Amino acid sequence: MEDGERGEGKALRKSDFEGGEMTPETAPHVGGSLLTIGDEILLGDILNTNAHHIAVALRANGFRLERVITVEDREEAIAAALQQLLPVSAFLIVTGGLGPTDDDRTKEAVARAFSLPLAVDPSDLERLKERTRTTGTPWNHRIQRLAELPRGATKMAPGRPMAGFFLEHQGVPCYFLPGVPYEMETLLDDIVLPDLKRRFPHRPVTRKRILRVQEMMEAEINQRLQGFDPVETGVVLGYLPQVGENWVTLLAVGRSEAEVAEALDKAEARVTALLGGEHVSGRDDESLEVVVGRLLKEKGWMLAVAESCTGGLLARRITRVPGASDYFERGYVTYSNRAKEELLGVPPEILAAHGAVSEAVCRAMAEGARDKAGVEAALAVTGIAGPTGGSLEKPVGTVFVGCAAGDRTVVKRCLFHGSRERIQQQSAHAALTLLWRRLKP
Amino acid sequence: MEDGERGEGKALRKSDFEGGEMTPETAPHVGGSLLTIGDEILLGDILNTNAHHIAVALRANGFRLERVITVEDREEAIAAALQQLLPVSAFLIVTGGLGPTDDDRTKEAVARAFSLPLAVDPSDLERLKERTRTTGTPWNHRIQRLAELPRGATKMAPGRPMAGFFLEHQGVPCYFLPGVPYEMETLLDDIVLPDLKRRFPHRPVTRKRILRVQEMMEAEINQRLQGFDPVETGVVLGYLPQVGENWVTLLAVGRSEAEVAEALDKAEARVTALLGGEHVSGRDDESLEVVVGRLLKEKGWMLAVAESCTGGLLARRITRVPGASDYFERGYVTYSNRAKEELLGVPPEILAAHGAVSEAVCRAMAEGARDKAGVEAALAVTGIAGPTGGSLEKPVGTVFVGCAAGDRTVVKRCLFHGSRERIQQQSAHAALTLLWRRLKP
Repeated sequence: MEDGERGEGKALRKSDFEGGEMTPETAPHVGGSLLTIGDEILLGDILNTNAHHIAVALRANGFRLERVITVEDREEAIAAALQQLLPVSAFLIVTGGLGPTDDDRTKEAVARAFSLPLAVDPSDLERLKERTRTTGTPWNHRIQRLAELPRGATKMAPGRPMAGFFLEHQGVPCYFLPGVPYEMETLLDDIVLPDLKRRFPHRPVTRKRILRVQEMMEAEINQRLQGFDPVETGVVLGYLPQVGENWVTLLAVGRSEAEVAEALDKAEARVTALLGGEHVSGRDDESLEVVVGRLLKEKGWMLAVAESCTGGLLARRITRVPGASDYFERGYVTYSNRAKEELLGVPPEILAAHGAVSEAVCRAMAEGARDKAGVEAALAVTGIAGPTGGSLEKPVGTVFVGCAAGDRTVVKRCLFHGSRERIQQQSAHAALTLLWRRLKP
Repeated sequence: MEDGERGEGKALRKSDFEGGEMTPETAPHVGGSLLTIGDEILLGDILNTNAHHIAVALRANGFRLERVITVEDREEAIAAALQQLLPVSAFLIVTGGLGPTDDDRTKEAVARAFSLPLAVDPSDLERLKERTRTTGTPWNHRIQRLAELPRGATKMAPGRPMAGFFLEHQGVPCYFLPGVPYEMETLLDDIVLPDLKRRFPHRPVTRKRILRVQEMMEAEINQRLQGFDPVETGVVLGYLPQVGENWVTLLAVGRSEAEVAEALDKAEARVTALLGGEHVSGRDDESLEVVVGRLLKEKGWMLAVAESCTGGLLARRITRVPGASDYFERGYVTYSNRAKEELLGVPPEILAAHGAVSEAVCRAMAEGARDKAGVEAALAVTGIAGPTGGSLEKPVGTVFVGCAAGDRTVVKRCLFHGSRERIQQQSAHAALTLLWRRLKP
């Protein structure tokens, strides 16, 4: 196979975009690979946030990241990964292993994998010597290594101290970036993405939309969406279960932003209809607390919450949203029975008769919070988050959520499973769902 | 190559552990691979937290994760990765693609990669039919798919609804886990790790200890720990800055738990001394809220909190700890000035004179919470979390934290930087630090 042929083979031509259907499966796309190098990832010291950042940036620019490989800081491991990725990639991005220390082996691995001996870049060497002179740093072989590059490679930012170099091998553009997130992100934006766009001018526009679905199981959602036709709509569905809600993702690919936006809108309308409109609470970043906040503001209502087993989590989710003070008045974390009586006016006899975790107490908490705070709407949560405190008729995970709004109070009994943390999260979400139901038009 | 040979070839023998130095770098190891499947990772919708969780768990149990590959939900892509990982892995863990939906392709990929046709497990099918009968779910081919497995594979948790199966192929144990973090983590702990330990009895003991350091900058910590000698102690130090505190990690490898524990204890004593004892608040999972809770219990004190800009986060951190009801009485989320007056008795004239974000109001909130709740100790937080609401003399990030315990009240003014979320987190942490200082012997 001739040099260059691969790269061109992967590049898209204008003709690829003329006529014919274009779906996420069938659309022509420029598919690249990412190699992230670093023991700290494999040892679990850090999350691979570089991979996430690069994935987001590539998608936003119409490229597809087809695979990510993470290997240790070992020359053989890096070289093997490079040899394996090159033939299957339209482009290759590599992060890490470019520093001056002995466990930075990327350059040596490239030299080995692609049989391109390391050579010192004279002008770069001069710059380094100059800098050490001005900073008074004593010269050593580590600094010398910074000026070495595999034959044919070019430094990305000659002016700047950051590492990072480019190499086209067998027609595949390869971008080698430092592992330090800030430096990686700068070179990605300033050099890698512009160069990729120049090399691959014809790319599909790829956009994804998330629909947040409340009060419906994943299997049920999947069942109802059988009627959805990806071919007819040109949109592919995905499912991402979250704590308390489910996400349906819509992925569309097209020739223009307008075309893709139209396809997504059509698909969203179809999905919403199939699920029965009242189950979709928001899109993308519109969490339930954001949507509820907007609805409260529209109504001009103020909100108070009274929580027991969620211990502040419900108020915390609401006040996480900037501007929450426009509609959130106060929260009561009534962890003890005394607090429930003193702050919310829950009658001791109700506590005695039904216990703190009961429909009656939850109702009294919600109405007490509404009246004591003098607000239009209040939420209440009382339950057993565990790990202990459960009983036969009220096992761990038994939670009552209540919503007192205007002169109407609704209380719901739930049974959640999992860890204390999970039960607390699900409880807070269930309370927000009650309020959302009450507020939505 | 004979079946089984691979697996044995990767296993360590007792002799590997006889004599010689053993450092985190030089220790013999059992190296495995992880394959994470999911478009949502490659599209940048989610961070690959499963990979991180598995990396941590493997290291904690003396295994080494040598590589991670992430591929799309495509049968060919998954199959290719499986074929490529099998020969180089002592064990293989795969996450994702096991659900009931159409974009779950892992089983099909395994069947293709290892030439093991899918077959229905009759007993599993019975269980599923039973469950659908009891839950009244209409039967469909998707549920049927849940009972299919590649020939020779066994379901991991037959009793439980979770997906997940095991397969030994060419001597390499392969564990297929669901992508839903909660389910993945459960099966990893209950089934995968115990089975790995049984199969690979000889492995170095690797232990990491985290020391949580309060009120000291990373650079300062770094400076003070120059005197620490890794060679003499056989322990390697690492630094992980967190929100509000810094972690110093101690990594040790040895032949026995006793050997490693001794090395870590020595190293911990040395680090603590170099930092000046009073800065280390706890180890590993001993978060500040856990330590503070234990100290409150020892003293027999009850705690109340009054929060403004943290909006419930402080109470939430405290009540995240199981058994918090033993020492946490209540929390006031006094978001509005009215709430500060009505619930905590903050004098309106103080609010008018100094503003809600002030030393005087913070003090009044802390003492008000202590007295109104009738408890021994109270914390208060008031500040500007942003993104708006800052001024010249009180910019966004200005936060007052106060602690009223017994007859003593301490108030501290802080200036935090970053997002609203970050400022809220740092504020809650600063309040807990005040209480920790007050309580510690």
